[in-house]
Amino acid sequence: MPKSGSEPAPTKEHITAYLKEVKTKVDACIFDFLPTSHEDQDVNELYQMMLDYPRRAGKGLRPALCLLICEVFGGDAERAVNTAAALELLQNWLLIHDDIEDGSELRRGDPCLHQKHGIPMAINVGDALHCKMWEMLHRNNDILGHQLAFQILSEFIQLSNQVVEGQHIELSWVRNNRWNINEKDYWTMCIQKTAWYTCITPCRVGAIIGGASTEEVDVFIELGKSLGVAFQIQDDVLNLIGDVGNYGKEIAGDISEGKRTLVLIHLFNVCTPKEAQSVIDIMARPRTEKTEAEIQSVLQLMHKYNSIQYAQKCSIELLQEASEQFTHKFAHLPNNRAKQLFLSLIHFFVEREY
Amino acid sequence: MPKSGSEPAPTKEHITAYLKEVKTKVDACIFDFLPTSHEDQDVNELYQMMLDYPRRAGKGLRPALCLLICEVFGGDAERAVNTAAALELLQNWLLIHDDIEDGSELRRGDPCLHQKHGIPMAINVGDALHCKMWEMLHRNNDILGHQLAFQILSEFIQLSNQVVEGQHIELSWVRNNRWNINEKDYWTMCIQKTAWYTCITPCRVGAIIGGASTEEVDVFIELGKSLGVAFQIQDDVLNLIGDVGNYGKEIAGDISEGKRTLVLIHLFNVCTPKEAQSVIDIMARPRTEKTEAEIQSVLQLMHKYNSIQYAQKCSIELLQEASEQFTHKFAHLPNNRAKQLFLSLIHFFVEREY
Repeated sequence: MPKSGSEPAPTKEHITAYLKEVKTKVDACIFDFLPTSHEDQDVNELYQMMLDYPRRAGKGLRPALCLLICEVFGGDAERAVNTAAALELLQNWLLIHDDIEDGSELRRGDPCLHQKHGIPMAINVGDALHCKMWEMLHRNNDILGHQLAFQILSEFIQLSNQVVEGQHIELSWVRNNRWNINEKDYWTMCIQKTAWYTCITPCRVGAIIGGASTEEVDVFIELGKSLGVAFQIQDDVLNLIGDVGNYGKEIAGDISEGKRTLVLIHLFNVCTPKEAQSVIDIMARPRTEKTEAEIQSVLQLMHKYNSIQYAQKCSIELLQEASEQFTHKFAHLPNNRAKQLFLSLIHFFVEREY
Repeated sequence: MPKSGSEPAPTKEHITAYLKEVKTKVDACIFDFLPTSHEDQDVNELYQMMLDYPRRAGKGLRPALCLLICEVFGGDAERAVNTAAALELLQNWLLIHDDIEDGSELRRGDPCLHQKHGIPMAINVGDALHCKMWEMLHRNNDILGHQLAFQILSEFIQLSNQVVEGQHIELSWVRNNRWNINEKDYWTMCIQKTAWYTCITPCRVGAIIGGASTEEVDVFIELGKSLGVAFQIQDDVLNLIGDVGNYGKEIAGDISEGKRTLVLIHLFNVCTPKEAQSVIDIMARPRTEKTEAEIQSVLQLMHKYNSIQYAQKCSIELLQEASEQFTHKFAHLPNNRAKQLFLSLIHFFVEREY
């Protein structure tokens, strides 16, 4: 747990250790909560499928944000562990359905759930974890009392509405074969689809449990937008330049999937019309009809026009904005260890290479 | 609204009028609640898709059970309308996902949502309505107060856990090409997949809002199992003998889908091994590889061995059980109009022809 005092700024090792500590706590909460076995063989099989994604090693960014922000406001992070675990369940059911919707192949280094068990079962497993998320939030009644529990439920409801809208926008682009996306379209989609559940809500619920005022809680809307988009851009960049062993998905899988990223939008803005058309011709085709050489040709254009560097620069700028807002808006709060860790953590996530 | 007194037993017309009255109230609640338009074209499209299934005419059985049971215990049905509307939202998201999982074509007379917009968008629309269900239940906080609202949430959580397990069992049978299902397997699946959300929970939440004691609320577990299975059997029978105009799905669609019903289990128990093998050969093939003549041959065997009549008899017996339990266990409650309507309504639903 972060301690107060004027210790030196947290190093990468401190952050890694803190993430591990949070993961241990949150995993204990999740695996104590999810059912593990059933005498009926079929139901038992469902339970194992429900445990699949939660068991795949995530980085635990969302729970860490939630617990740290709780402590930034002087709250007891232990009281927020259940809510942090619900954020992980949210992530898991979203990923299961998202992987089906995008026709993805790998998730955290293993075949996606629908690749292993078929789409029908995978939809149902996602629904099962979705229900478990609300059940976990319902338990806040005993941990936090009626009023706070209802407030946290409200936050998850607001978030859910955002995320399904963001998801629909992205799916519409694919279905309508729309490629004339500008940066503003991208921000809107990305804030709704990613920033809410990755940053805004984790920070807000941490702040609420930590006893922050409504004004303080609301700071995390703008701050979380910048931060969430920064994380997403960095994720998209890693998809193009990462190493499959660390990254856990197919490299350049976003090109295979035809995903609209800031990198791609930049490329369209600066390349020749002929190059743009060749990129669209490749991107728009179904995954199975793309050759490795075609994917590499898109990647080469992204390198040629420094589109990846452009996206990285945007990501760093957004991180700076978020970082300055945090420092400025919460200057009245003690400069405790949680505050230092939060700042180091967000830098770590934008600057990470896996 | 049902009145007290010794009026004559409700007729089919009374029941139809009551169902209409409930539907009007519940629809008003749902359509007042769901978002209807958005300036962003894509988000607006999502909203229209979310309204699609709720706008298709359902019979409103679940809300009617909920409101009637509330009144049986002397409660004010108006306080239960929001919860009844959440039951309808539940039904809608379940149907959207179920239709994808079963590869269905028609729902309430129109193409299924995934047939209209593709699987990715339909999954997301189901998720969107799923989230809206919990949002609607969250509103009970203002209508019923903290404690009752949390109790109703608990009921929906219990129900959700049941329904995803029942769904998984049925999907397992399909994936494992399993045909040696006995009646016990069928009851287990059907109770979890259907009875909980169709009868047990609607009655339980109605009773809770109506002020019933824990013992009274628990009567609806056994009673609702019998009733829910009775309804499902009748639904399966109508799938085989109904008229598409009234029924709203393809006739004998369950044979196309390879669905394990009580009718089919009976057929396997009484036909010759050779006939059973020919039925399995047809049922096990994907929908697109079945000819109309093959579907008719299965249907003819079901008629030849009176399997449909057998299922109907079971359905009537289960209804009788439920009916007697209701009369016996709640003999201490006044014989008000709600009580009479409930009994007439459950008979109506098992004896209906569409």
